[in-house]
Amino acid sequence: MSIKVIIAGPRGKMGREAIQMIESTEHFQLVAYLDRKNKGRTNESAIPVYEDPDKCFAEVQADVLVDLTTPEVGFSHTESALKHGIRPVVGTSGFKPEEIDELKKLADEKKIGCIIAPNFAVGAVLLMQFAKMAAKYFPDVEIIEKHHDQKLDAPSGTAMKTLELIKENRTAKAQGHPNEIETLAGARGGESEGIRIHSVRLPGLVAHEEVLFGGNGQLLTIKHDSMNRQSFMEGIKMSIDEVMKLDHLVYGLENLLELNN
Amino acid sequence: MSIKVIIAGPRGKMGREAIQMIESTEHFQLVAYLDRKNKGRTNESAIPVYEDPDKCFAEVQADVLVDLTTPEVGFSHTESALKHGIRPVVGTSGFKPEEIDELKKLADEKKIGCIIAPNFAVGAVLLMQFAKMAAKYFPDVEIIEKHHDQKLDAPSGTAMKTLELIKENRTAKAQGHPNEIETLAGARGGESEGIRIHSVRLPGLVAHEEVLFGGNGQLLTIKHDSMNRQSFMEGIKMSIDEVMKLDHLVYGLENLLELNN
Amino acid sequence: MSIKVIIAGPRGKMGREAIQMIESTEHFQLVAYLDRKNKGRTNESAIPVYEDPDKCFAEVQADVLVDLTTPEVGFSHTESALKHGIRPVVGTSGFKPEEIDELKKLADEKKIGCIIAPNFAVGAVLLMQFAKMAAKYFPDVEIIEKHHDQKLDAPSGTAMKTLELIKENRTAKAQGHPNEIETLAGARGGESEGIRIHSVRLPGLVAHEEVLFGGNGQLLTIKHDSMNRQSFMEGIKMSIDEVMKLDHLVYGLENLLELNN
Amino acid sequence: MSIKVIIAGPRGKMGREAIQMIESTEHFQLVAYLDRKNKGRTNESAIPVYEDPDKCFAEVQADVLVDLTTPEVGFSHTESALKHGIRPVVGTSGFKPEEIDELKKLADEKKIGCIIAPNFAVGAVLLMQFAKMAAKYFPDVEIIEKHHDQKLDAPSGTAMKTLELIKENRTAKAQGHPNEIETLAGARGGESEGIRIHSVRLPGLVAHEEVLFGGNGQLLTIKHDSMNRQSFMEGIKMSIDEVMKLDHLVYGLENLLELNN
Repeated sequence: MSIKVIIAGPRGKMGREAIQMIESTEHFQLVAYLDRKNKGRTNESAIPVYEDPDKCFAEVQADVLVDLTTPEVGFSHTESALKHGIRPVVGTSGFKPEEIDELKKLADEKKIGCIIAPNFAVGAVLLMQFAKMAAKYFPDVEIIEKHHDQKLDAPSGTAMKTLELIKENRTAKAQGHPNEIETLAGARGGESEGIRIHSVRLPGLVAHEEVLFGGNGQLLTIKHDSMNRQSFMEGIKMSIDEVMKLDHLVYGLENLLELNN
Repeated sequence: MSIKVIIAGPRGKMGREAIQMIESTEHFQLVAYLDRKNKGRTNESAIPVYEDPDKCFAEVQADVLVDLTTPEVGFSHTESALKHGIRPVVGTSGFKPEEIDELKKLADEKKIGCIIAPNFAVGAVLLMQFAKMAAKYFPDVEIIEKHHDQKLDAPSGTAMKTLELIKENRTAKAQGHPNEIETLAGARGGESEGIRIHSVRLPGLVAHEEVLFGGNGQLLTIKHDSMNRQSFMEGIKMSIDEVMKLDHLVYGLENLLELNN
Repeated sequence: MSIKVIIAGPRGKMGREAIQMIESTEHFQLVAYLDRKNKGRTNESAIPVYEDPDKCFAEVQADVLVDLTTPEVGFSHTESALKHGIRPVVGTSGFKPEEIDELKKLADEKKIGCIIAPNFAVGAVLLMQFAKMAAKYFPDVEIIEKHHDQKLDAPSGTAMKTLELIKENRTAKAQGHPNEIETLAGARGGESEGIRIHSVRLPGLVAHEEVLFGGNGQLLTIKHDSMNRQSFMEGIKMSIDEVMKLDHLVYGLENLLELNN
Repeated sequence: MSIKVIIAGPRGKMGREAIQMIESTEHFQLVAYLDRKNKGRTNESAIPVYEDPDKCFAEVQADVLVDLTTPEVGFSHTESALKHGIRPVVGTSGFKPEEIDELKKLADEKKIGCIIAPNFAVGAVLLMQFAKMAAKYFPDVEIIEKHHDQKLDAPSGTAMKTLELIKENRTAKAQGHPNEIETLAGARGGESEGIRIHSVRLPGLVAHEEVLFGGNGQLLTIKHDSMNRQSFMEGIKMSIDEVMKLDHLVYGLENLLELNN
């Protein structure tokens, strides 16, 4: 039996990829689009398009809502879906803690699954978890992240998240030579609790992150290269399957992964 | 209070590195050498040198035996040390299953720790464990290992061990294009259950291993570079500390590591 | 004054990228399409579409023909363009030596430029040239090329071309340990005159090539990553500019590059 | 016939490596040591040790002086050797321009070769030359250099030298997004004429440099890994051979290399 899926945000870049993924997965069935700015348009594929989430969730018989909209709109979508017994799979890091708490209660009441994930790229999530684990044994660590030259902020959000996870397990340590001198300011990169982080920006790059752990006579490197938005689809696919088995809210793809060795 | 250590095999390459490590670690104390081919020589450092293990373990008050000899000699050393209540830390992959069982029983009887590790490089052990974990989510995987051009066998033992661990978690899968053609025989590397493994041999290389996991739009790479024998010392150091807390035998450094996220 | 360009093969993947590149380059002007299978269609952009090359080259006042069709069709296009005094820029490795000779004569007669390039990716061409130069000083070399898992042949054409260039400068040498043993057949890769070549195929990869030179205590690596077809546009752009300055045929982008140090 | 070599600075780290290299090269013959702090000691190998350079060069019949001392001492050694008709091969970046001019005149007068090289690692010299060549075609470039964590200065001298060579060929360009923001100061690295340079310092690293060139849809990377001092011996060996063929002074190993494609 197939899992019936509603997609919110079908015209965005992620939405369009998600439609393709759902249509090419045999046991998934696309049953409706939720598209606030749709203005009454219909689509060729005969899949109904709704502007009003409540109406959508009431009329359409669905198992899962995949929400790829903004945090603002996404919250009310998620809330409404849960109330209608539809399991949300939401890709955002923008919900406030109190919003997540509220959704958690709602999922518990309804005894259905809900997955909220800031990052659906399984590889990036694994990189972060492995980095966190390795930090226990290698307190000397630097991060190099590389992105296309149109990226505005440095370091990247994923690199900063990795940094936070590393800190949870790392013994505080002043790295490098105590009398180290920068003859070119900034050469040693950004710094946080002694950990150095370097941001490379070049045309031709997409989104790459590398965590280097150094020890006497050895180096352990964990690296993730993201080439395009398809990298997120595997995580969404896995989440659609997993949310059906859950009876509560899970925040973060890492909490779906079985990583004990 | 310091941990009193006997080193077996003090004149080998690993032994000499271990002596340095123990002497430079404040809470370790070198109390004797066990050296079968010593021929009555004494050493400058006033640390006693024994040829007979039983005599050594009976006369010297020690906490831990670090054995860096061969599997043949190492087994009787380990057995004798356990009988004398001295905790063995042994670096070998050469013990037979029945030998390990026997040592396991002995450690249980004596209620003391014993650590046997085929690989003391923490980074290499982490690489293998991370690769095993990632294989659950990325069935498409290839291994590239690189060594100096004087290495006899290809692939390396560590790469083959990594391959075995990956197989434990990987869903069987035929990788690559079904009609793939090698216009140069061997170009696609060695093969085992669809996983490809490539061995590079060049002067200038030391010992390097890289596991590449590919998924739609993304790549996850885990890499270990070993520059010299110092890479093993961190694992021996950790084992000396950990063996003091154990009351049984542990085989493999991975079973000492806390890798739950 | 802008350079007036005709594109042959405008509906192919390369053709479409080339149209974008020409339209976004200020001093280039798109003046016609040559499209054999056009079947009388016109296009929205009001740029004339021709099916007959001779008619096209006679009627349209153009400086350069960019031909991104097949070798078969491309040869007659190139010949005809030269006869009409239009400079061809052709991306193919499929012309026979005698065809190139014929075009060479024609360009000489007309005293105009003609550029034929098997590879328009400047980075890939630089990799090959640098590899050729380095081979003079590092006879120990291995090639690793990585592509998506839908590629049929291994090794890649670019890797084989690199191999040929390296051989031109490399002192013959048996690499690796003389008694080297493959415990897994193919682990040491494909072999040609002692040089080893390894082909990795994984989803998530695009097109990557790495040449590793090893010497005592050091390693020199030259690497090219091609992420998408845009990588060819820079070379086509450069060729359009350079073909205007030439009075003869040049085969291979490397012969346009100034690489003396 | 073998080339007769005097080594100045035989007890230093480089000196000791050089002795090994010369002794293991069939057509080289070690004829004397020049060792200012020798204090009358003789050595086991029956090779004469001199404290006074003039006396050494007058008494010993030698072809080449390999000087691995300091710039201060090295200058007078080089001057004296040239006067005695012995060809100097000197590894230093410490000579002043006027000193080099003076030595140049002396070599011209004597019509013998003299090689002064700031860096004898052929791979590092090739990296720098390739980077300079590529900069003509890829104005977007960043440098990542990685060293052990006991290095005092960042960036490394080799990285700064590479930067200077790149600038000679690169069209000035503001790289990255014009409104780029560093949320962690220094994340984007050191900066010089828009080129970014990043210095990584970790235990386990030795000396590594990577130059990344980015273009639309592609990336060209040139990388050098130096594992130990043996990396310099190939360059010294080559210089001993080449200095015999020269009749003038050459500054920089790159001027001995044939790099035209």
